[in-house]
Amino acid sequence: MRPGAVLVTDELQLRALGTPPAGWRHALWDELEAGAVPEADVRFVAIDRRGGPARRRRMRELPHLERVQVLSVGYDYVAEYVPSGARLHNAASVIAETTAEQGLLGILAALRRLPDYVRAQDRCDWVDVDDPTSTIPASALESLVGATVLQLGHGVVGKALARRLEVCGAEVVPFARTARLEARRRVRPMEELDDWLPRADVVSSALPLGPQTRRIVDAAFLARMRAGALFSNVGRGATVDTAALIAELATGRIRASLDVVDPEPLPADHPLWRMPNVLLTPHMAGDARTTARDLAALVAAQVEAYRTGHPLIDDVTDHLPRHAEHVS
Amino acid sequence: MRPGAVLVTDELQLRALGTPPAGWRHALWDELEAGAVPEADVRFVAIDRRGGPARRRRMRELPHLERVQVLSVGYDYVAEYVPSGARLHNAASVIAETTAEQGLLGILAALRRLPDYVRAQDRCDWVDVDDPTSTIPASALESLVGATVLQLGHGVVGKALARRLEVCGAEVVPFARTARLEARRRVRPMEELDDWLPRADVVSSALPLGPQTRRIVDAAFLARMRAGALFSNVGRGATVDTAALIAELATGRIRASLDVVDPEPLPADHPLWRMPNVLLTPHMAGDARTTARDLAALVAAQVEAYRTGHPLIDDVTDHLPRHAEHVS
Repeated sequence: MRPGAVLVTDELQLRALGTPPAGWRHALWDELEAGAVPEADVRFVAIDRRGGPARRRRMRELPHLERVQVLSVGYDYVAEYVPSGARLHNAASVIAETTAEQGLLGILAALRRLPDYVRAQDRCDWVDVDDPTSTIPASALESLVGATVLQLGHGVVGKALARRLEVCGAEVVPFARTARLEARRRVRPMEELDDWLPRADVVSSALPLGPQTRRIVDAAFLARMRAGALFSNVGRGATVDTAALIAELATGRIRASLDVVDPEPLPADHPLWRMPNVLLTPHMAGDARTTARDLAALVAAQVEAYRTGHPLIDDVTDHLPRHAEHVS
Repeated sequence: MRPGAVLVTDELQLRALGTPPAGWRHALWDELEAGAVPEADVRFVAIDRRGGPARRRRMRELPHLERVQVLSVGYDYVAEYVPSGARLHNAASVIAETTAEQGLLGILAALRRLPDYVRAQDRCDWVDVDDPTSTIPASALESLVGATVLQLGHGVVGKALARRLEVCGAEVVPFARTARLEARRRVRPMEELDDWLPRADVVSSALPLGPQTRRIVDAAFLARMRAGALFSNVGRGATVDTAALIAELATGRIRASLDVVDPEPLPADHPLWRMPNVLLTPHMAGDARTTARDLAALVAAQVEAYRTGHPLIDDVTDHLPRHAEHVS
């Protein structure tokens, strides 16, 4: 293979890559942006939201770019910039389990009123669950035991979430864009969702963002959810029509646990912050203390596989919306 | 079987029992306490903390009491009052799964700083996890993925908790009073705990309270936990030396997620409330919207089994501390 340059987003990745083989160069994106790395040299890039759309747009100007390693599970924000000759890899192997963990936590916390208990703790208030007149009576506590959960999205995150929900005693009904049979699970097509929404205690979304899923959670979707049901989202904020969600939440009919919203960051004066039936976390589902280090190790392993002609993992090129026109 | 009386704690249980067979009587404890039910008639009682120790003490005065159905998993608070000729049943089949669910939630919430996110939401503050100077940087977020969890207590709750922790990616090391092999799990004796405590990311207790477990979590135990580790308790508060726990927490070395404490209810001026590294819930792990109804159904099924000579479930008589002297 002809030597070239690898661009990464931080020093951790640079260190994980180690000393480059003869002729190769490892550099930060900043160096390309400063003109210190020739565009024609770049063969492999790691990229995430850092650097904004301007950085992503530069990918189109790299004539010999062959591999794009995105440092997240979702790749909606890079999709349009990946050159048609390049292959795209996501970081599902690093991020998916943590994301599913946060998805489970968001659901459990909302069902079992943890935010209200945190506020009670801040008041030094031992709320008596057996007292029906207390601020959090037993009648307000729900559980995954015996609950019906619609799992929207059954990729790596959806599957990891489904496993967790099932062991907690929930009946999980998975939905994806294409119906299929997977191990013991029948994955239903999104078209059947209308029939199932009124039966769900929880609707758990890990949907990717694409032309078919943008604002798929709209007013009609939310109106079909049963009173008291919970909508949870660790996928992408723009799969939801935020105005419709706020309107439904304002009636008090449903509740929501959201790690992703539209827009992000959510402005301080946005009505979602203050809704009593909403639990909000700031798009941190994929993050943990070890994530940056694990991503650096992933980048190093992928670059090594690329340079030595071994297969790379987490290839999502064929899922790109533009794949119909894609020549690989 | 000679007819007799069944005492229950609430109207839901009374309704679930339905019309008594000829000669039988279904009554609330209040009626015994008011002298309306002869003590010699009582064959079966359902009981919990309601009515306090005075009610529990009355069990000793029931000469023909054969079955005691406690409406919780733990039975430490009734143990000394169960007549030596009676058998004791707990409500593990109703309460254990919810308790394990809350145990998992308490652990996940503490690892992933959910209380801090709830407080950030109340400030309308989109905390940037990628900013190392933010109030909750990625470096503060932990995960069960790859964590080592010591599960203390491997009865119905401990097992249900271990299943959940394992599917979340933790390596679970179960401990119980007696070493044993269970399915794929090697359950270690509490004597080996000293060696394992420094290796644990999380110590998760679902220990029952008894002579061997009272204050088993003492200063020496806590000092052996590694810096940054989490102690979680959904068992019984008095298995912990509260003063020792507070002293260790005050150093900031460890964190705690507690659904049970000693004393309960925790007084408003107790220091545990205000410790920044503590998540407190008011002994609600076993509770959910359906719990009272499910307990009523359990009582009805157990009474029916008792009257028709069929085996009752959840018999814990042999685990009573006084079992050595017990004549069954």
